[in-house]
Amino acid sequence: MAKIVIKFGGTSVGSIERIIAAAKIVKKQMDKGNKIIVVVSAMTGKTNELIKQSEKISKNFNKRELDVLLASGEQVVSALLAGALNELGIKAKSYMGWQVPILTDGEHNNSRIVNMHVEKINQFILNKGVAIIPGFQGVSKNGEVTTIGRGGSDATAVAIAKFFKTEHCEIYTDVEGVFSTDPKNFPKAKKINKISYEEMLEMSSLGAKVMQSSAVQTAMMYDIPLHVRSTFSSTKGTKIFGSKNIDYSKTITGVTYSKDDAKITLLGVQDKPGIAADIFEPLGKNSINVDMVIQNISSDGKKTDLTFTIKRNDLNKTIKLIKLNKNNVKYKSISSNKKVSKVSIVGAGMITTPGVTYKMFRALAQDKINILAISTSEIKISVIINEINTIKAVKKLHTVFNLD
Amino acid sequence: MAKIVIKFGGTSVGSIERIIAAAKIVKKQMDKGNKIIVVVSAMTGKTNELIKQSEKISKNFNKRELDVLLASGEQVVSALLAGALNELGIKAKSYMGWQVPILTDGEHNNSRIVNMHVEKINQFILNKGVAIIPGFQGVSKNGEVTTIGRGGSDATAVAIAKFFKTEHCEIYTDVEGVFSTDPKNFPKAKKINKISYEEMLEMSSLGAKVMQSSAVQTAMMYDIPLHVRSTFSSTKGTKIFGSKNIDYSKTITGVTYSKDDAKITLLGVQDKPGIAADIFEPLGKNSINVDMVIQNISSDGKKTDLTFTIKRNDLNKTIKLIKLNKNNVKYKSISSNKKVSKVSIVGAGMITTPGVTYKMFRALAQDKINILAISTSEIKISVIINEINTIKAVKKLHTVFNLD
Repeated sequence: MAKIVIKFGGTSVGSIERIIAAAKIVKKQMDKGNKIIVVVSAMTGKTNELIKQSEKISKNFNKRELDVLLASGEQVVSALLAGALNELGIKAKSYMGWQVPILTDGEHNNSRIVNMHVEKINQFILNKGVAIIPGFQGVSKNGEVTTIGRGGSDATAVAIAKFFKTEHCEIYTDVEGVFSTDPKNFPKAKKINKISYEEMLEMSSLGAKVMQSSAVQTAMMYDIPLHVRSTFSSTKGTKIFGSKNIDYSKTITGVTYSKDDAKITLLGVQDKPGIAADIFEPLGKNSINVDMVIQNISSDGKKTDLTFTIKRNDLNKTIKLIKLNKNNVKYKSISSNKKVSKVSIVGAGMITTPGVTYKMFRALAQDKINILAISTSEIKISVIINEINTIKAVKKLHTVFNLD
Repeated sequence: MAKIVIKFGGTSVGSIERIIAAAKIVKKQMDKGNKIIVVVSAMTGKTNELIKQSEKISKNFNKRELDVLLASGEQVVSALLAGALNELGIKAKSYMGWQVPILTDGEHNNSRIVNMHVEKINQFILNKGVAIIPGFQGVSKNGEVTTIGRGGSDATAVAIAKFFKTEHCEIYTDVEGVFSTDPKNFPKAKKINKISYEEMLEMSSLGAKVMQSSAVQTAMMYDIPLHVRSTFSSTKGTKIFGSKNIDYSKTITGVTYSKDDAKITLLGVQDKPGIAADIFEPLGKNSINVDMVIQNISSDGKKTDLTFTIKRNDLNKTIKLIKLNKNNVKYKSISSNKKVSKVSIVGAGMITTPGVTYKMFRALAQDKINILAISTSEIKISVIINEINTIKAVKKLHTVFNLD
């Protein structure tokens, strides 16, 4: 008799057949006696199609109207799924963002959910109704349709779990869960049964494919258990919750890697307060996303070396911007490496297990993989290596940390 | 400085290119200093596509959810057109049915517009904004999305003209206006410049292709001038208003005809009160649409002959139903003609012009076209003839009444 949120991603409702299949999943949960609120995405590809249409009209399409346009995608799926549940003999009703209402704040295309009214829908689900709520959309206090940014259906699902105080939140998607490394390229990758919010967030590329990061952050903040699972198989997926609930038998939970990175090193940078900000401000203003930043303590207290990574596409532009900024940021020389990758091991278990760092570096050395830079956090160790070594490195670490 | 409603049909907004073209039409009207409310249909084919999707889910798709589903079609076009107007430097905002709000009464899929709030939008258009309102949709007093039946965008446009007290209502569509007969099959057909509401309604098949009848009826009731014109050419279309505003130089305005008709005659029916109801009740209950009904005065006060027309597809079913009803309706014999057509002349001018009936029958006789049945109203004379003579008859009447 739990109250739960079930969220279906775009591929899970990507066709009429899949919407009918999603309805059957909801029915199974109903048959267990659960009280259910469903959150749906637009059909896969629909949001992109609508954005393309808007771009054909204007490169700078009106933001208010874009919200009205895009909200239609989730609206369509909500109505179709409600109809499909009816067909299975289940009472179901769609509630648009303005009907709930899901109140948002902030600007169009990028609003935040600040509140929602729960009485009406609580009443409905208490009487064995399934409430279906389109993800991604809300309504401003002025009664305007708003959206909360791409991938926002995850955020809607978690926000609903929070305001409706549901027991947990199930995220149905097209993968079986979070894997110990990318299952497409590494056949030995294993599905992770339990993972902490922190690890999920540190899994970056791996986690992000499965669930939107800011939704995981919200779940972490309100301690809402998540269960990411596949619409296309009945196997259990990955459960995500606070690390205190996880019994770590393994030190490392997963090995992640990023592709298409490039590395820039500024040698002999003047070591003074605010220098990092001076370096990165022009990059940020030009929408260049800086990933890893490593700065060593300067040996003489005056000069330091600074290394950072960016996407490979941005390399030339970044070097140009730094050179243009020569008046604010003085340095001796600049070097770059166009083809690097970042390989990381993630695991809350490493906090209590000494020697993980050493074990990682030793393993890479055994395979003659040169480490170009290192960065660590509480539960993650990342190294920059030459891109050509990526697969070798991931395989090695996956084996060494008993993930195969 | 008039306040006007401009309505675009589905083909007029059937692609991004056409939406941009529609925005340019609105801009032209803005440049004249008009205050404008635009009503839009869904892209051509969209509503059918959504209905098909719902039918794949259920033959008896939930009516509340069908409204939510279908309303998305006009929502998309509203947002796109608002964006296109912005791109032309015009202030524009879409207002969904629930945002206006357009209040409706009655059941889902078939609601009626009962009221709408005008202050907010009046304020906006007074400040040089173009308000864009999706046709076909509204909101019930319980805050549910409703729709007002197929072709409902015409009805929305006329209702807006009524509640906002606009000067007139322009209906942009894919034809140049109402023609004196079907221009596809009769090259001599001429566009009618002015026509009365009553004639428009009597033009049945011709008029219905251009505008939804119930919307014309509402316009007639509130004396709202309509102007039906093409989105694809800048020529003036057909203006529709009260007959008192029309100077009739011609007796007859148009010649219409229907195809795929069949005729049934019941001979020797007992002539008693309620007999017509007894005959037609089972047909109505079986969704058979009876068109023309002709009953002669019985010669002996006891028996009469009754002729009526139906769609050819319904012929066998109709005969079966009448035979099943033998206990309630006694008759001597039943005869049918599978291939007939109805040819009508329509014109408010015939009220004041004697001899029109005679002229029509004489013209048909000259061409040896046999009349099987006749029915007349104030401004319309219809004859049933063998289908094979249809084209000959329409051509003849079009010429005889000076419409070529």
